[in-house]
Amino acid sequence: MPGFMDQLDSAVADRKTPVLVGLDPQEQLLPEGLIPQGAHVPGVGQAAAYLGFCKGVVDVVASLVAAVKPQAAFFEQLGPAGANCLAEVIHYAQSKGLLVILDAKRGDIGSTAAAYARGLLGRGQSAWGADAITVNPYLGDDSLRPFVELAVERGAGVFVLVKTSNPGAKTFQDLDCQGRPLYEHVGAYVEQLAQQTLGSSGYGAVGAVVGATYPEQLARLRAQMPHTWFLVPGFGAQGAGARDVAGAFDRRGHGAIINSSRAIIFAHRQPPYAERFGSSRWQEAVEAATRDMIEQLRADTPAGRLI
Amino acid sequence: MPGFMDQLDSAVADRKTPVLVGLDPQEQLLPEGLIPQGAHVPGVGQAAAYLGFCKGVVDVVASLVAAVKPQAAFFEQLGPAGANCLAEVIHYAQSKGLLVILDAKRGDIGSTAAAYARGLLGRGQSAWGADAITVNPYLGDDSLRPFVELAVERGAGVFVLVKTSNPGAKTFQDLDCQGRPLYEHVGAYVEQLAQQTLGSSGYGAVGAVVGATYPEQLARLRAQMPHTWFLVPGFGAQGAGARDVAGAFDRRGHGAIINSSRAIIFAHRQPPYAERFGSSRWQEAVEAATRDMIEQLRADTPAGRLI
Repeated sequence: MPGFMDQLDSAVADRKTPVLVGLDPQEQLLPEGLIPQGAHVPGVGQAAAYLGFCKGVVDVVASLVAAVKPQAAFFEQLGPAGANCLAEVIHYAQSKGLLVILDAKRGDIGSTAAAYARGLLGRGQSAWGADAITVNPYLGDDSLRPFVELAVERGAGVFVLVKTSNPGAKTFQDLDCQGRPLYEHVGAYVEQLAQQTLGSSGYGAVGAVVGATYPEQLARLRAQMPHTWFLVPGFGAQGAGARDVAGAFDRRGHGAIINSSRAIIFAHRQPPYAERFGSSRWQEAVEAATRDMIEQLRADTPAGRLI
Repeated sequence: MPGFMDQLDSAVADRKTPVLVGLDPQEQLLPEGLIPQGAHVPGVGQAAAYLGFCKGVVDVVASLVAAVKPQAAFFEQLGPAGANCLAEVIHYAQSKGLLVILDAKRGDIGSTAAAYARGLLGRGQSAWGADAITVNPYLGDDSLRPFVELAVERGAGVFVLVKTSNPGAKTFQDLDCQGRPLYEHVGAYVEQLAQQTLGSSGYGAVGAVVGATYPEQLARLRAQMPHTWFLVPGFGAQGAGARDVAGAFDRRGHGAIINSSRAIIFAHRQPPYAERFGSSRWQEAVEAATRDMIEQLRADTPAGRLI
């Protein structure tokens, strides 16, 4: 069985785009018909609405992109009802041919990290069944290894936070540590893990989260981490455009997936899609926004070479 | 309503001990009678066993200690069934008079961090209802603020990872950043947040996770962070003893809670409790191990002044 990054490499080539659609359901942003009305058990009405909404997004994007990225926080916010919903969303997306990267940003010490890994990682081999997850490096090498080992064993993937897309990323990630910023130390360690887990695509089972909001740092990290697939957040709602992410790709247009969440799934609320489609035709807005992002990346990044 | 750290301060004074009991259920370590047999739905049998086990631990320790700390990973490992179980464990422990610190080590960018905070933090005010949670600082200041703001609003607490107890903590936390280790930068920021959220106990709503396995660093951080309550993991199964954690307390014996998980909840498997009680009397083993830890901390740390 090919490992996750090889599957991702093939799927990106097949769909001819590196667009990754983030599933970040939020009650107050749902299309009007989906907003839950007076449910009796806390979270249950919202969870049903989130499930319907996420299935609706998946139905639209399954033929257009390689992967989706559910954000665990928005499901977890609903309590146990949200947990059930998240598991169903993961399963549904996979049944439609999508790879699923669970954005959980987990991290803990050895045996506890192993518990997260065993529960979250591996399609059909874990309770949640994600194809890949995001993890936090602060706890160090022995907190990352259980994820990496299980990912290799199960043909799954891990994306380690290296440089995040938020303004506060600078607080600690940019600290000068012995002549280079902290995030480059993390990046160097992740690249080692990637080299140790290389697949046929030339990329390892371990990837990195590198924000689109710092284009120069992104290009520099690309050069420092040639075997590491990048998951790039920050496009769209967070302000980055196609030119900002161009440096994330290798020369063939591989090596990076570019995430957009709110700008795609809530396109029905934003110009120019709000005027064209409105809330009642929200799935058409999702499709138009996805196609537009695909075109922008083709025009202004090496992803154009995927065609 | 007093904030969480003031409630914790009072509860520690009332129980006359800083012992924090970690709830880390693991199927292969459960007492024999509780190991689930051939359940049909994945996770459901285990979740029922975890619930019974955790309730059994709570029943024993509720009159002895101030707080318990469920480890989210072990529940999450079971999938949605584990999520239900975790919510029930939190609620049950609170109904028995315990404060509940959910060890979730969450962290994400602004609006996503807010979703975690809204869902997890606040007894009777959130889906999960934890009195406090642990969070990861890697994403920086704007990833911590949503937790801090909601904690203040809801009278809840936040413990930020500063220096963790695992060997791999050194990989990044010990990196020399402009003349001092990374974890001291994080500690300084956490102390600022604590000063901005001071309660009547003299401690802020924001605490720090500082491992027991580095006694000198612990004492040094105590001096640098006088308004920050410490949650200290690493006692017992991870190798630290009472003398190692002595530096975590202030002069009155307040300011720190000392966690032990496996050495208490699985005491029936370990000497000297295995011989005295065995699997069938596992709750008596939990009680004896808890009382022994209370005595050790009284004998060899400033916690003796709580009497």
